Amino acid sequence: MTSDLRIGIIGVGAMGADHAERVARRTSGARLVAVSDPDAARATALATALDGVQVIGDPLQLIAEVDAVIIASPGFAHAEQLMACLEHGKPVLCEKPLTMDAESALRVVEAEHKTGRSLIQVGFMRRFDPEYAALKQLLDSGDLGRTLLLHNVHRNKTVAETFRSEMIVRDSLVHEVDVARWLFDDEIARITVHAPKPTSLVGEGVLDPQLAIFEMAGGAIADVEVFVNFQVGYEVRCEAVAEKGSATIGLGVDVLTRQAGHWGGAVPDDFRVRFGPAYDIEVQRWVNAAASGGIDGPTAWDGYAAAAVCTAGVQSLTEGRPVEVELARRSEVLG
Amino acid sequence: MTSDLRIGIIGVGAMGADHAERVARRTSGARLVAVSDPDAARATALATALDGVQVIGDPLQLIAEVDAVIIASPGFAHAEQLMACLEHGKPVLCEKPLTMDAESALRVVEAEHKTGRSLIQVGFMRRFDPEYAALKQLLDSGDLGRTLLLHNVHRNKTVAETFRSEMIVRDSLVHEVDVARWLFDDEIARITVHAPKPTSLVGEGVLDPQLAIFEMAGGAIADVEVFVNFQVGYEVRCEAVAEKGSATIGLGVDVLTRQAGHWGGAVPDDFRVRFGPAYDIEVQRWVNAAASGGIDGPTAWDGYAAAAVCTAGVQSLTEGRPVEVELARRSEVLG
Amino acid sequence: MTSDLRIGIIGVGAMGADHAERVARRTSGARLVAVSDPDAARATALATALDGVQVIGDPLQLIAEVDAVIIASPGFAHAEQLMACLEHGKPVLCEKPLTMDAESALRVVEAEHKTGRSLIQVGFMRRFDPEYAALKQLLDSGDLGRTLLLHNVHRNKTVAETFRSEMIVRDSLVHEVDVARWLFDDEIARITVHAPKPTSLVGEGVLDPQLAIFEMAGGAIADVEVFVNFQVGYEVRCEAVAEKGSATIGLGVDVLTRQAGHWGGAVPDDFRVRFGPAYDIEVQRWVNAAASGGIDGPTAWDGYAAAAVCTAGVQSLTEGRPVEVELARRSEVLG
Amino acid sequence: MTSDLRIGIIGVGAMGADHAERVARRTSGARLVAVSDPDAARATALATALDGVQVIGDPLQLIAEVDAVIIASPGFAHAEQLMACLEHGKPVLCEKPLTMDAESALRVVEAEHKTGRSLIQVGFMRRFDPEYAALKQLLDSGDLGRTLLLHNVHRNKTVAETFRSEMIVRDSLVHEVDVARWLFDDEIARITVHAPKPTSLVGEGVLDPQLAIFEMAGGAIADVEVFVNFQVGYEVRCEAVAEKGSATIGLGVDVLTRQAGHWGGAVPDDFRVRFGPAYDIEVQRWVNAAASGGIDGPTAWDGYAAAAVCTAGVQSLTEGRPVEVELARRSEVLG
Repeated sequence: MTSDLRIGIIGVGAMGADHAERVARRTSGARLVAVSDPDAARATALATALDGVQVIGDPLQLIAEVDAVIIASPGFAHAEQLMACLEHGKPVLCEKPLTMDAESALRVVEAEHKTGRSLIQVGFMRRFDPEYAALKQLLDSGDLGRTLLLHNVHRNKTVAETFRSEMIVRDSLVHEVDVARWLFDDEIARITVHAPKPTSLVGEGVLDPQLAIFEMAGGAIADVEVFVNFQVGYEVRCEAVAEKGSATIGLGVDVLTRQAGHWGGAVPDDFRVRFGPAYDIEVQRWVNAAASGGIDGPTAWDGYAAAAVCTAGVQSLTEGRPVEVELARRSEVLG
Repeated sequence: MTSDLRIGIIGVGAMGADHAERVARRTSGARLVAVSDPDAARATALATALDGVQVIGDPLQLIAEVDAVIIASPGFAHAEQLMACLEHGKPVLCEKPLTMDAESALRVVEAEHKTGRSLIQVGFMRRFDPEYAALKQLLDSGDLGRTLLLHNVHRNKTVAETFRSEMIVRDSLVHEVDVARWLFDDEIARITVHAPKPTSLVGEGVLDPQLAIFEMAGGAIADVEVFVNFQVGYEVRCEAVAEKGSATIGLGVDVLTRQAGHWGGAVPDDFRVRFGPAYDIEVQRWVNAAASGGIDGPTAWDGYAAAAVCTAGVQSLTEGRPVEVELARRSEVLG
Repeated sequence: MTSDLRIGIIGVGAMGADHAERVARRTSGARLVAVSDPDAARATALATALDGVQVIGDPLQLIAEVDAVIIASPGFAHAEQLMACLEHGKPVLCEKPLTMDAESALRVVEAEHKTGRSLIQVGFMRRFDPEYAALKQLLDSGDLGRTLLLHNVHRNKTVAETFRSEMIVRDSLVHEVDVARWLFDDEIARITVHAPKPTSLVGEGVLDPQLAIFEMAGGAIADVEVFVNFQVGYEVRCEAVAEKGSATIGLGVDVLTRQAGHWGGAVPDDFRVRFGPAYDIEVQRWVNAAASGGIDGPTAWDGYAAAAVCTAGVQSLTEGRPVEVELARRSEVLG
Repeated sequence: MTSDLRIGIIGVGAMGADHAERVARRTSGARLVAVSDPDAARATALATALDGVQVIGDPLQLIAEVDAVIIASPGFAHAEQLMACLEHGKPVLCEKPLTMDAESALRVVEAEHKTGRSLIQVGFMRRFDPEYAALKQLLDSGDLGRTLLLHNVHRNKTVAETFRSEMIVRDSLVHEVDVARWLFDDEIARITVHAPKPTSLVGEGVLDPQLAIFEMAGGAIADVEVFVNFQVGYEVRCEAVAEKGSATIGLGVDVLTRQAGHWGGAVPDDFRVRFGPAYDIEVQRWVNAAASGGIDGPTAWDGYAAAAVCTAGVQSLTEGRPVEVELARRSEVLG
């Protein structure tokens, strides 16, 4: 009988606390043994609520003591923590972004490559959503022919006033960047981020919504609306158009009501309803893989490439023109 | 070049006035020339609004003077007016009910049969609704095998307080009676009208909703919810279940909105949105047929059979048990 | 730190093997330690595939040795195995039927009552399906007023030729019996099972589809189509009609495709796609409850009541008339 | 009593013959009296089929003899025929394109302006489609706030091999140009037509699909997929995204079937199913307006502006970059 994988979590804000409860209560073959957070009181409260969890002040010490690590700390802390995971040979699930910029992300990719192992998985959870997974399977089956276009929509109900135009690219559009790279199995060569006249329901100077055009290296195209103050609720939709048909996910049909002059259903307030099961599947599959010392999902390269695209995207938004994505040659980096 | 058919309308309440405007403004090959109504002021106002229409006080005189007749008077007046149309050999579109009871309806059927012509069409407009027509065509194609079951729903937003339990059968369920007879191409042999504990949003003693079970002569079954104080809006839905599949109409999907936490669409307040086009098609096709002296739709027999089923339905509702439908033998009546 | 609950499974046919994998791989806080099956080779193969599982020939010995039991043996074996669980004070999740008839089911209810504990949970997994759970929550919220009617549909693609008319009631309709009792929070007082002329795509003498009418003690009504040779696939749908609106679940919308002249989606072949997550939730919640010595779901009484309704349903099908359900008085049995 | 409007149709190919039948059989207040076509046999056959219609060889003579004209001739003939209608003061419904290029279209606009009357209506029938009309009404109501984005899709099953890349812009995209101008009530300032790697199911060198971006003068943006060899069928969809919600039309839900492992509905082969009612409404409303000597729909200016946008679109497609639309100043042309 194999024993459970001993997991440590760095950063127990909203996302980290969510993962803590997931590991402790809904994941088979894993045991949450340690958490670390600069806010010691927050870490202690969580550890107390979840039986048998130790608080470790120094995240690098936590890395040393557990079997596998989930990084849910702020992005600026990722690089150092990832490097420590690589040094200790610990499998790690790192929430996006991999690091704060493409250059540092590339250094992480290279450092992992030198270990000769796959240790880093990036938290692009959409790949584990049953609908995205079914869409990917359908497109890869070839039944619809080659995929030509994606029409995607990413909408939040509202975001904090501190959420600036660039963050719409780096924190929201980044998921769509990964989706396009993954569904097309191709890199994004050029990006245009259009800014229509903004909604009036947003702070001065924030460009919301945005319309991004991804031109893939192989000639396919994706258009993506990102609208983070949509008012209605959280909505993520993807339509793939192929040579012999199309497929759409994210319609959000479950309970259909007829009430007060309307038929239809509820649009959820946030991503938890839409992607809760995706996170569960992501973590369970990562635990299963980590038990064998590996990963089962998006790689450090995926994190690096997404960062490179977002950098170009911010530039396009600023300069109002298409921008080529600067990406290291994969074969040179990964041999 | 053929000249337009000269139409007269008897009864210009809501339904008759609607038909008047339809004939005058949206029907090809027809001309509204006369209207008759006990409320002379109402008839005059309408005639004035629609250019070139004469008011004739006596409906029987109107019948004598026009090419074809639409009867939209109260049900108790139908028998005499229909007999007059038969005497004058005038094609007539008669709103339901054909007459007030099965016996008088049968006499109209017999009287028409003696003329040797098909002159009477009953206003079961659903048969002309594009969705119902497509459903009928699909079922008749045999692609789904033999039809086994219908699951139907008929809902009004609200009805007047004067609308009693029996009227739910005679005025609302009657449309479903015709639909079942038409889709199955069979007579209803037995009817059960269940009355669940009524909604509290209805007057004392009114049994609303009702659940009717039609057992067809050939062994198929239909269940029908009629709920005339549904509060939400007007909804008519029909699901046919056949040996190799099913088909549903009446979903009411057109403009799909996402707004205020909800996705979906509007449920219309009344039947005009749902069946407006059906009435237009019904009248246009009837005009085309009447120009040749005939009809193109539900017959007097259909009106008689519906009345016989409703009579049994009211008895079932009252006595709380299944009731056999008493119907004259068609071959004996129509030779 | 609490240790995992040690689970034993009796019967490792399709359902039991499914549960074995669920407990071993996807359930937190539980460990599959033993299986028992008359087919020793089948049990051994399963135990070998899942690391650290013991084969125990005698199911009663298995009950004695584990912390909690899942019964997935044939129905005729349930009574003895349930009694043994009660004697040993072991929490048990028993697949339906509770036992083979209402009388023996009532004896199990009484025996459990004497233990003074809630140990038996019946495997009506639909209550754990997220859509059913959301529907239940909506109806209980009172937002739609009192629930008046249910319109339900239960369809299988095909069933084995050995599946007889009575089994449609006892093995398929039984789920709908539990759904109606649960959603209305009321007992079924009277049942009518109509048999329309059967589909030709079924063996001689099998009455398929069937249309059941449940009249609840409190006056609400449910109509249920059960059609086990629908040819298309597996479909379970439920529409609740209340005083101020309606709600429908089971629409099965996920990936929407446009392909070969059609738009729409796939109808799954069997219940695994539709209710797989429900089984996962059911078992996880039962494990959580069983760790404290209790249950969290349908009770032995629910199993008994369902059996009593099905007995009346078979009688109605046979005799072609409504049949009153004979049910012990709950207050007398459970004090 | 007013007499019927005497209509003449120039060009009786597929579109013209369709209009001929529409005027003759389904339009109130109009009478088809003359047709003209270079293919005299075709004109004669049609005239014979429709009672009371005269064949006139010279289209300019037809214009002189009727009350109002429908032009369904090839685009290159439009300019001369439109000028003749203006000279005779005859109301005219002209199928798109108005003329073959922006310059000649502008001359028609100027010529009409000099008459001091509105005589020319362009056949952008989508404005009369009930779904588009409801969408327009919703957006104009202000309930959703200001409209920010459109996401549109225009798909044909297949087109003739002779259909070249530029025709996708001029014959298909042109409808979307009018839709965007109409819904936003604004001119298109800049257009980009992207050409992803084409489908392999198209002739060498044809750029299909295309993705157009319209940047409106007021800052809103529309993205439009045009895919004329989609294989599946005809599909036109429009999603408007506004500050407080979104609205989608063109879902094409009517009869919903469950059959052979699938649920869903049919995608029609061509535009006739989707826009048949729109053409009926367009022609009826134009007849009503023409009876008073005017029009009721898109103007010559709309035809001119659409041509100017398409010219820029073809240039963008050829040069692979955004192109500014050159448009005369409306106030200078129309005073």
